[in-house]
Amino acid sequence: MGLPEIAPGDDLSRQIVDARKKQGLVIREGDIFVVAHKIVSKSEGKIISLDSIEPSERAVQWATQYHKDSRVIEIVFREANRIVRMERGVIVVQTRHGFVCANAGVDLSNTPGGTAILLPEDPDRSARTLQAQLSKAFGVPVAVIISDTFGRPWREGLVNVALGVAGVAPLFDYRGKLDGSGKKLQATVIAVADEIASAAELVMGKADRVPVVVVHGLRIADHPGSGRDLIRSPETDLFR
Amino acid sequence: MGLPEIAPGDDLSRQIVDARKKQGLVIREGDIFVVAHKIVSKSEGKIISLDSIEPSERAVQWATQYHKDSRVIEIVFREANRIVRMERGVIVVQTRHGFVCANAGVDLSNTPGGTAILLPEDPDRSARTLQAQLSKAFGVPVAVIISDTFGRPWREGLVNVALGVAGVAPLFDYRGKLDGSGKKLQATVIAVADEIASAAELVMGKADRVPVVVVHGLRIADHPGSGRDLIRSPETDLFR
Repeated sequence: MGLPEIAPGDDLSRQIVDARKKQGLVIREGDIFVVAHKIVSKSEGKIISLDSIEPSERAVQWATQYHKDSRVIEIVFREANRIVRMERGVIVVQTRHGFVCANAGVDLSNTPGGTAILLPEDPDRSARTLQAQLSKAFGVPVAVIISDTFGRPWREGLVNVALGVAGVAPLFDYRGKLDGSGKKLQATVIAVADEIASAAELVMGKADRVPVVVVHGLRIADHPGSGRDLIRSPETDLFR
Repeated sequence: MGLPEIAPGDDLSRQIVDARKKQGLVIREGDIFVVAHKIVSKSEGKIISLDSIEPSERAVQWATQYHKDSRVIEIVFREANRIVRMERGVIVVQTRHGFVCANAGVDLSNTPGGTAILLPEDPDRSARTLQAQLSKAFGVPVAVIISDTFGRPWREGLVNVALGVAGVAPLFDYRGKLDGSGKKLQATVIAVADEIASAAELVMGKADRVPVVVVHGLRIADHPGSGRDLIRSPETDLFR
């Protein structure tokens, strides 16, 4: 669904409810709202003016070398808990939330000029809040996934993934179930919340301002859900 | 769509056409057939009997240490062009095709006992063949994506990705387009073929034997397509 421009302090759930009414969409029990993180961050005021940033020497150095804006690089450093890779003009970090992504998710598109948008403070909390508000407004339990597009090692292009999750199981565990030939399936845990986010991206479009997509008919069991479950723990991370 | 068990030499397109008829599905121009690689490999005879494998000393050593089948490990080694990581019981390789994935995509579920299924020899070629056959059979141009579920560094769970692509652009390039605030979008290339594969996985189900999913209504421009375009080149790979 299309939404008007979101500003800090806006009631996002109300905007979604209004857009739903205008567009005549029917919301049913179990529908999943995939929401681009950008409008969540905007409504939460996670916008930062570049002019307010005093870049460190390290940020200036890197920015000069790779023709970037040193203030943006400084924001990336501040949003990072840990630098994973920093070479060939690319900065991959682990954010305070635990997400490993390029530029700490700091975003310069679809923002007012001279500002950058950060990731939501706590995407799971944002998802839970929105889920409660939307479930109440629509009178049926719905789920919420807050998404962003991330790059991947080894594969070209970005895909949409789930940062915050509420009301849907982020992982579906097939282990112990039988396959078509009667053998137990092993090591088959599917990141369904990421797949739902990816599916939704196909109708979002980057430039088309469709920041909310309603996914209907998946019949995924009710589950409190958490985006944190999708973050790999250091013990199984071979690519730190 | 559900399909009967596929065996080497089976005409996969005929099986899909038959299943379509039985299930009364309408196929329209531009529909995208997402096909689990496993049935493609089976029809192409890419099944290997474990008893035919003489494991190397290295395979035996690794298998003993991590309680694996040394014959399977030997197949993984043979399918690999390059070992990316080999530790803590996990083997991540780059396959002969260029895909970086665990165990070279060698699969033991949904296979006859004592056999392993390999990736198709050339997934793009398989996709093109199937696309031509299905387009002819249905009388409208359709697209084909051959998919497999891959793990990711940093994120838990597998997601379905595109190995072979025919008739749909694997990447959608937003660069140069304007965002909602009139600024040029940068560095925004979306891996749509991977997202389509992920979307399809949500209805495939691992154990439910739904190896073909028809995606309708995406209106993605006609494009020859290639799964190779989704493989990151060594020059931009920070995680070799």
